[in-house]
Amino acid sequence: MSKYVIGLDYGTLSGRAVLVDVKDGRQLASSVYEYPHAVMNSEIPCGKKLPADWSLQHPKDYLEVLEKTLPDVIQKSGVNKSDIIALGIDFTSSTVLPIDKNGEPLCFREEFETEPHAYVKLWKHHGAQKQADRMTRAAVEMNEPWLVNYGGKVSSEWALPKLLEVIEDAPGVYKAMDEWVEAIDWVSFKLTGKLIRNYCAAGYKFLWNKHTGFPRDAYFEAVHPVLKEAMHKKVKAPIQELVSVAATVTDEMAVKLDLPKGLPVCVGILDAHGGVPAVGMTKPGQLMIVMGTSGCFMALSETGAPVPGICGVLEDGILPGYFCYEAGQSCMGDQYAWFVKNCVPAVYFEEAEKRGMHIQAYLTELAEKLRPGESGLLALDWWNGNRSILVDFDLTGMLLGLTLQTKAEEIYRALIESTAYGARMIIENFRENGVPVNELFATGGISQKNAMAMQIYADVLNMPVRIAGSDQGPALGSAILAAAAVGGEKGGYDSAFDAIRAMAQTEQKVYTPIPQNVLVYEQLFAEYRKLHDYFGRGENDVMKRLKKLREE
Amino acid sequence: MSKYVIGLDYGTLSGRAVLVDVKDGRQLASSVYEYPHAVMNSEIPCGKKLPADWSLQHPKDYLEVLEKTLPDVIQKSGVNKSDIIALGIDFTSSTVLPIDKNGEPLCFREEFETEPHAYVKLWKHHGAQKQADRMTRAAVEMNEPWLVNYGGKVSSEWALPKLLEVIEDAPGVYKAMDEWVEAIDWVSFKLTGKLIRNYCAAGYKFLWNKHTGFPRDAYFEAVHPVLKEAMHKKVKAPIQELVSVAATVTDEMAVKLDLPKGLPVCVGILDAHGGVPAVGMTKPGQLMIVMGTSGCFMALSETGAPVPGICGVLEDGILPGYFCYEAGQSCMGDQYAWFVKNCVPAVYFEEAEKRGMHIQAYLTELAEKLRPGESGLLALDWWNGNRSILVDFDLTGMLLGLTLQTKAEEIYRALIESTAYGARMIIENFRENGVPVNELFATGGISQKNAMAMQIYADVLNMPVRIAGSDQGPALGSAILAAAAVGGEKGGYDSAFDAIRAMAQTEQKVYTPIPQNVLVYEQLFAEYRKLHDYFGRGENDVMKRLKKLREE
Repeated sequence: MSKYVIGLDYGTLSGRAVLVDVKDGRQLASSVYEYPHAVMNSEIPCGKKLPADWSLQHPKDYLEVLEKTLPDVIQKSGVNKSDIIALGIDFTSSTVLPIDKNGEPLCFREEFETEPHAYVKLWKHHGAQKQADRMTRAAVEMNEPWLVNYGGKVSSEWALPKLLEVIEDAPGVYKAMDEWVEAIDWVSFKLTGKLIRNYCAAGYKFLWNKHTGFPRDAYFEAVHPVLKEAMHKKVKAPIQELVSVAATVTDEMAVKLDLPKGLPVCVGILDAHGGVPAVGMTKPGQLMIVMGTSGCFMALSETGAPVPGICGVLEDGILPGYFCYEAGQSCMGDQYAWFVKNCVPAVYFEEAEKRGMHIQAYLTELAEKLRPGESGLLALDWWNGNRSILVDFDLTGMLLGLTLQTKAEEIYRALIESTAYGARMIIENFRENGVPVNELFATGGISQKNAMAMQIYADVLNMPVRIAGSDQGPALGSAILAAAAVGGEKGGYDSAFDAIRAMAQTEQKVYTPIPQNVLVYEQLFAEYRKLHDYFGRGENDVMKRLKKLREE
Repeated sequence: MSKYVIGLDYGTLSGRAVLVDVKDGRQLASSVYEYPHAVMNSEIPCGKKLPADWSLQHPKDYLEVLEKTLPDVIQKSGVNKSDIIALGIDFTSSTVLPIDKNGEPLCFREEFETEPHAYVKLWKHHGAQKQADRMTRAAVEMNEPWLVNYGGKVSSEWALPKLLEVIEDAPGVYKAMDEWVEAIDWVSFKLTGKLIRNYCAAGYKFLWNKHTGFPRDAYFEAVHPVLKEAMHKKVKAPIQELVSVAATVTDEMAVKLDLPKGLPVCVGILDAHGGVPAVGMTKPGQLMIVMGTSGCFMALSETGAPVPGICGVLEDGILPGYFCYEAGQSCMGDQYAWFVKNCVPAVYFEEAEKRGMHIQAYLTELAEKLRPGESGLLALDWWNGNRSILVDFDLTGMLLGLTLQTKAEEIYRALIESTAYGARMIIENFRENGVPVNELFATGGISQKNAMAMQIYADVLNMPVRIAGSDQGPALGSAILAAAAVGGEKGGYDSAFDAIRAMAQTEQKVYTPIPQNVLVYEQLFAEYRKLHDYFGRGENDVMKRLKKLREE
């Protein structure tokens, strides 16, 4: 008799559940819920005007995802709910919030309703840049051994700079919090009543590793005395390894969400990392790019050589036995969407509507007629800073080559090309530092929807790009790991690798480099790299100076 | 009894006539006619797809301006046409065309209907960049003495590179032409039946000066043997000084256009130059910026020191007794208009319409709320290349500081700021080379319509900006010079200075620098200058390389 698992994926704008067959990973149903309170671009739920680089969310949204999608996906699938054997969760990260002793988010309290620091800080909240810079400086000065595993820089997107920001800017929130947790672990807690910390976030976002634990007290003390205290008092729930069951759903939640009683909930995983099992990656030298609002790069390697400018490397960080490297681009789809929302004139929307096309599909139709280099445009893809390999969120976007003849579709294509150049910087950086990249997988919305973008990536990277998974890849991945977590005896699998081999969505389409395009993109990439270094490596810090002026 | 003069101004998109009172320059009526065949941005009348940097026009438009505006302006004014004592004309430049022995444009012939080179090459036609570069190289190599008077570079916007382009790319047109003339002189010929060349275009656009004439044969021969021949055979009509009567209208044209019989037509002047008398400039140290689709800078000086990167300096070039310097920005209003047409989303147009505002007025309303530096954006204003002080049309526009929060009004303001920085480069360059700039006048459409832009100019230039004239300044200027050309005896004036003092539209409004804005703009201008030099002076020729790739 068939068994099923549910994967629950919390993205930047919405949450979705997929229900898949344990036998072959086939998706029987899915259910998506857009966050109604999602707080993008500095609009916040607490009524204050916040700096432009802030990004908060409301935890209510996450509970509503449970209520809306779980009963719905089961009902849609038509399966007998007693055949559902496990639930896996993945989440954007580091998306963190302060909770009290009862596990309640502090922003739920009336006293903190208008306190921005009491809300969820989304992964792309960049308000803790100063704190991150100080953490990096201290680590460099004190020669901290763990720093090389994080590309040599502490990112403001991670959990601890965001915690330090609370300590410094909202001491009342700091005092009132009992734990500083990843949203993923908080959702898991809401389902099961048991609070654990997942290995993946602990490793990639909290500076922890299984050999040496967190950085030493002396380091935290040097950064800020209260941070040392916080690491003991507010970051204390136990860390649990991936591919294991965290706990089972409480009876109350089982009733409320119409789930099977005692359903095992697997230890959560970060969303991009969850994509790795979904596309069928099991070998070293494989790299996956999750192409969504931002871009995540996941590479498997047998050795754990330090690589500058990456987000992190963690032993067993995704799959047991491998060093799993993470790197990232701070915006990808976000950058294209910014352009469509802010820079595309009405005539394009009218023409798209007339032809029954989505605006991005219409722009793509126009842009794909351009040959590489034809627009004369070149962009630096830093609309949301640079996560890898410069790890600098004070960098900003640039567009060059504009003329009175420049058209919207040309800029659109140039923005896509710029993110492909950014991807190439990351891949070359891996190779130059001893991490092989022989095989390339792409997953996520862009890989599914934008064939022009994928051809550009193949041409710029000069590698075949294998499109695998679906736009619900991370959800499938967390479902696969959940199937492995419960084990073969319960109808799942005895190892993650077995589960992947049976359930992964293997490659659906391959984009192959077109030689004459590769030749042109080699030249354009050389120009990109030159400007990347000029603006990104201190030759001309104009972007930082402009940002400072902006804030004055 | 009152006497009147008509000023006829041929702009980039339209022609207009104004009828003014000789006594005080008061405008009694005006009449505008938009060119129906105007050819912007490489759309051409001959059915061929042309390179993006081409810009042709159709001479039919110029005749239609005569027919539509002259009878109309007289009728509207209500004056007795026998009291009209002179007609002055100004024109964009170098806007040139090939004509045959009868003075007919070659594009009027069936055989040349589909030959782009038979049409008018508008001032901003940049197809002759290669030819201009070769002319510069030869002049440098041969140490030609006149080169310093043109800022050290031959511009592709001038008449002779455009002629060389015809010689090389359309020998049939070259062979069939009898004269290569400025459109202004051709219109004057159509009115009077007499073909002369105006002193102003000869000096600024044909490399001629009153002391040494055209460059020597050996120079032209070195550039191209046929160019030497062309200078004798196709550039042969006599040059006539400014502020003099070219000829009187033919009886046929007087009847056709309802003009007084025997109306004197004054020697034409370039449009921006025509603005100088209109704003009342009569002293050294004064500089006028004509702010229209592009920007023209006119400075009066008692000495003629060479200044690198300007368009030209000509003794008596505008007013007798002064060295008149010209410099320019290849686009100004064109750049703002490009943005509005190509990058502003529908919601802005909808809101503007709802409030009964012009879109640029609405964008201005939003943009003027921003304090200097608030957007974090910085642009290089090279959407149409750089006329001064780099004299390089292979440069392109750049925009930097973009984030996911960047809004249309922020970019709009950054584009305006960028042209103000470009203006400051020009003014500082004058000063550094011994041409004083003590007093600043602005005229043209932008100076009249966009108070925010003018405040930005005052703040960036750190000088009061006096708005003078009207958006029909050049038309008034050519009317003033026409009144001086016919002389006091005929009801005009005996000198240009007398005419200016009586008829100019003196300053209407002064924009004064705001100290705290000046402080911020000093910093932003320092950033602009650094990028200007990095991209414009050969440190990183990425813009040129991209342009080459575009053309491949």
